Amino acid sequence: MNSVLQPFQSAAITVGPLPGSRKVHVPGPSGSRIPFREVALDPSCHEPPVRLYDTSGPYTDPDVQIAIDKGLPDIRSRWIEARKDTESYAGRTVLPEDNGHAAGIHSVPEFPHKRAPRRACNGHNVTQMHYARRGIITPEMEFVAIRENLLRQQAQETIDRLGPRDGVPWDSAIPDDITPDWVRQEVAEGRAIIPANINHTELEPMAIGRNFLVKINANIGNSAVTSGVAEEVEKLVWAIRWGADTVMDLSTGRNIHNIREWILRNSPVPIGTVPIYQALEKVGGIAEDLTWDIFRDTLIEQCEQGVDYFTIHAGVRLAYIPMTVDRVTGIVSRGGSIMAKWCLAHHRENFLYTHFDDICAIMKAYDVSFSLGDGLRPGSTADANDRAQFAELETLGELTRIAWNHDVQVMIEGPGHVPMHKVQDNMIKQKQLCGDAPFYTLGPLVTDIAPGYDHITSAIGAAMIGWFGTSMLCYVTPKEHLGLPDREDVRSGVVTYRIAAHAADLAKGHPAARVRDDALSRARFEFRWMDQFHLSLDPEKAKEFHDQTLPKEAHKTAHFCSMCGPKFCSMKITQDIRNEARREIEQGMQTMSQTFREHGAELYTPADS
Amino acid sequence: MNSVLQPFQSAAITVGPLPGSRKVHVPGPSGSRIPFREVALDPSCHEPPVRLYDTSGPYTDPDVQIAIDKGLPDIRSRWIEARKDTESYAGRTVLPEDNGHAAGIHSVPEFPHKRAPRRACNGHNVTQMHYARRGIITPEMEFVAIRENLLRQQAQETIDRLGPRDGVPWDSAIPDDITPDWVRQEVAEGRAIIPANINHTELEPMAIGRNFLVKINANIGNSAVTSGVAEEVEKLVWAIRWGADTVMDLSTGRNIHNIREWILRNSPVPIGTVPIYQALEKVGGIAEDLTWDIFRDTLIEQCEQGVDYFTIHAGVRLAYIPMTVDRVTGIVSRGGSIMAKWCLAHHRENFLYTHFDDICAIMKAYDVSFSLGDGLRPGSTADANDRAQFAELETLGELTRIAWNHDVQVMIEGPGHVPMHKVQDNMIKQKQLCGDAPFYTLGPLVTDIAPGYDHITSAIGAAMIGWFGTSMLCYVTPKEHLGLPDREDVRSGVVTYRIAAHAADLAKGHPAARVRDDALSRARFEFRWMDQFHLSLDPEKAKEFHDQTLPKEAHKTAHFCSMCGPKFCSMKITQDIRNEARREIEQGMQTMSQTFREHGAELYTPADS
Repeated sequence: MNSVLQPFQSAAITVGPLPGSRKVHVPGPSGSRIPFREVALDPSCHEPPVRLYDTSGPYTDPDVQIAIDKGLPDIRSRWIEARKDTESYAGRTVLPEDNGHAAGIHSVPEFPHKRAPRRACNGHNVTQMHYARRGIITPEMEFVAIRENLLRQQAQETIDRLGPRDGVPWDSAIPDDITPDWVRQEVAEGRAIIPANINHTELEPMAIGRNFLVKINANIGNSAVTSGVAEEVEKLVWAIRWGADTVMDLSTGRNIHNIREWILRNSPVPIGTVPIYQALEKVGGIAEDLTWDIFRDTLIEQCEQGVDYFTIHAGVRLAYIPMTVDRVTGIVSRGGSIMAKWCLAHHRENFLYTHFDDICAIMKAYDVSFSLGDGLRPGSTADANDRAQFAELETLGELTRIAWNHDVQVMIEGPGHVPMHKVQDNMIKQKQLCGDAPFYTLGPLVTDIAPGYDHITSAIGAAMIGWFGTSMLCYVTPKEHLGLPDREDVRSGVVTYRIAAHAADLAKGHPAARVRDDALSRARFEFRWMDQFHLSLDPEKAKEFHDQTLPKEAHKTAHFCSMCGPKFCSMKITQDIRNEARREIEQGMQTMSQTFREHGAELYTPADS
Repeated sequence: MNSVLQPFQSAAITVGPLPGSRKVHVPGPSGSRIPFREVALDPSCHEPPVRLYDTSGPYTDPDVQIAIDKGLPDIRSRWIEARKDTESYAGRTVLPEDNGHAAGIHSVPEFPHKRAPRRACNGHNVTQMHYARRGIITPEMEFVAIRENLLRQQAQETIDRLGPRDGVPWDSAIPDDITPDWVRQEVAEGRAIIPANINHTELEPMAIGRNFLVKINANIGNSAVTSGVAEEVEKLVWAIRWGADTVMDLSTGRNIHNIREWILRNSPVPIGTVPIYQALEKVGGIAEDLTWDIFRDTLIEQCEQGVDYFTIHAGVRLAYIPMTVDRVTGIVSRGGSIMAKWCLAHHRENFLYTHFDDICAIMKAYDVSFSLGDGLRPGSTADANDRAQFAELETLGELTRIAWNHDVQVMIEGPGHVPMHKVQDNMIKQKQLCGDAPFYTLGPLVTDIAPGYDHITSAIGAAMIGWFGTSMLCYVTPKEHLGLPDREDVRSGVVTYRIAAHAADLAKGHPAARVRDDALSRARFEFRWMDQFHLSLDPEKAKEFHDQTLPKEAHKTAHFCSMCGPKFCSMKITQDIRNEARREIEQGMQTMSQTFREHGAELYTPADS
């Protein structure tokens, strides 16, 4: 939109609540406030408001004045300082190559209110896992507990009716009630992570693990022509507005460092990156020129900024590369192919693998979580579950144990392209090889033949693998394989993945997941159109679609819809039937109910009688 | 578009092949030609053209002059006449109420080249099942065999590489080679149907059964304001262009009879209807006024026109209605609620149930197949798999056996809204209760919370249940629950369901399904952009999306894409790696391969070594 840089311009930021929702807060640890979204229903239904998990941060809170050059309110500094195991320090000097030597009109300005970074005091380990294993419940864990526990009370009615668990949980074990100490245990055992760099103090803590709500990630990245930091921050705000739980910044090219700073200071959700992308920029895009020193320096640069998790392709071992030679689509991961190229060029083992302990040592000083990258993931259904993929997964398991020795939090990345009958094997093998470390998959796409619709091909696999136990699903947009997503693509991708994640929660038997479905279905059945829109994942689109056929305001309370019209409406007929049946049943079973009994007694009457 | 009636205007009909495809034919039974779509690939890849199943009829054949007032070429009359078991007769007189008393400018003209209908000669049974059970291979069966067998030869390479079956077929048993006699057996045993009314002579026969390719259905219906028959025919043409295997005409209101005639005479795919909709129109929309006589007359009216399958809600028994009273969404099927209302109003058993033998007697005289309607399907995930749903399914099983006693072909309709963990139970119960009759499901939607995106929520369930053995998937468009679908919605719905059906074929291990995925993946990996577009389910959208980021013609042959750009491209890097690895391996394993061996031998080297 804006062709000149407008760093302090917040006009491009989408603010305000979704239609029919309002921001509510409940008290959190040490004066913090835990955000929810609440949908009030039409008074006619006498139902309580539906409270929803809320990823959108202060942007949907009308009481907060957004100023992206100030950043979001600091939530965590006092928690971190109270732990007395970190120190503030000058930090690494920002170098011209951190921003791709951007200069003049091409350069994005620095974020104006930079704070000095913190790191662990000498010898200390500041990861959530470290605290958890020592029995310490952090404010982050408390925050997560309250946030995840939110719907349990509302779910009581559902639980009463269907019994505590209507679902097939596979290996998940979702408790009725989430306590801070239970969160601590999940983190201690590596089954969940709380990605929360001590330098990302604006973060509203969240957990990724199979016994929590299934999470989704959205990827963003700078455009070839950066039009202004507000536009870059808006990509984040837009993604979390629709429900992204974490956001990965996959920017390349110029201004990476400065854009990331703007994003982090304005992000209430964990931010992930793939540090090798920036390292590669620093060596002019020549994979062979990468060195451990350049990579290490890039890690520290990003740790100081507050990145919450790093994708590290340490499993792409030299010996596995020949296994990809006869694949239909070889290596399709960018990070994987960069490392493969480096290995081959030097005929040496992947330096991320050989320096894995060194990487852990850095990450535990800031509490950055690993997202162990699947550089050899299949890029076509033909290559799914092959030797290369599972050889790498085995190494990721080995690396997980090393990271856990350092008390560094870990999740494992997964495919990719996998036909339906091979999806569950991925989950089973991941658990087998990587212990209980959370699985974080891209889709998987269950067929290769639908470019332009790959948010859908991948949502099928994502919903299934989420059900089987995957903790976070990385979204795919309709532009996958074809081009760069625009705003509408991001919205489609995020909403589609919220569908997959929620379908997984339902199928696992999450005790609160059904509350929203049932409330929406009741609204649908009772023709409370506005309630139906407000409870839906995309209230704006639902209303827009309804308006296309029945635009009048009166139609929003009409007891019919456009599919059947007033005369044919099955919902209306059923309501009549229900009223009639109830009335008759109440009338002492004199007439109709007697008929019912007679017919009930002859349930197997042959049709020709 | 057109506000006046333009019955002979074919300008609104979409004709011509999809980009990169051409129509090819192979010889079929008694001089017929079996249509396929062939995608030629770039000469650089030295791969044969990919032959695809083609539902689009003569509309995509540039050699055929389309004139909707003439209708499509007659394919089947000589087959039917050669069987010498049918007679031509005057047929029922069209009554004003057949068209909702439409008159003057509101009336759609009659199709100008109406033929006299045929029916079975006295005492004869003309169903494909009847012939099949007597060991007769009909031309319809031969046609289906060639049509379904098409890709088997091309699949040989895949079979050689992966073994004959890379899939989990559950109860399906898809043969390597499809012969006419095998088709006959499938039909004889009721495991497949060939919906083919003897009065639908324009039909290109196809089969629905779990050992055939998974099929999809698209629903169409007249708009409130009928703008012309060409527009109504275009809805059909548009749906089959994107891949609908059958089309249901769910029109209500005026002109139903005449519009249906235009549709049938121009349809190469089976047409299904819900006759109770028209019967209800004839009694002014008052369900209580429905009678067996009116319904019977409507059946005959539609049999004479050539409707290939009827949804009949004969399983909505009086005794089951009270089971729906405590549901979250009661009865959501239109037909189901109409019959429930009738039952309650009269306190009598459903007349479709009590007259089921009479219905069979009519249907076998024309070879109309049953689609036994699930009038009590769940309309919300809360109601899935409940007592009402399965009680009805049990009755559908009972009715299946009665229909089979008449040699009438049957498929069974299924839900609806079902969370993932309850999807497979639907397939298992259907098979248990209805023998091997094909299952035909609507979705199912795996969550209720995404109005505006229900093509996606339902494609997740559809792909899964298709894999488990469902034979045909009824599409859902993005407008489901909200409004009437427009052209783009129909396209989205059909393509989304082609994804679900194809994902199911892949997962079942259909021997030919992977040919298209592998060809497309190779094209993707080799940057044959045009091949990738042409092999995709929606070549137009794929190209359009690519153009949005990289519009230049040169980009269509560029060895990179917009995601990573030329410098970062993982595909390009991998191709370099592959070339390098192959070269080195060929060089007598002197350098790198030696390193590989060393590392291969120490696969479990600890990371810190």
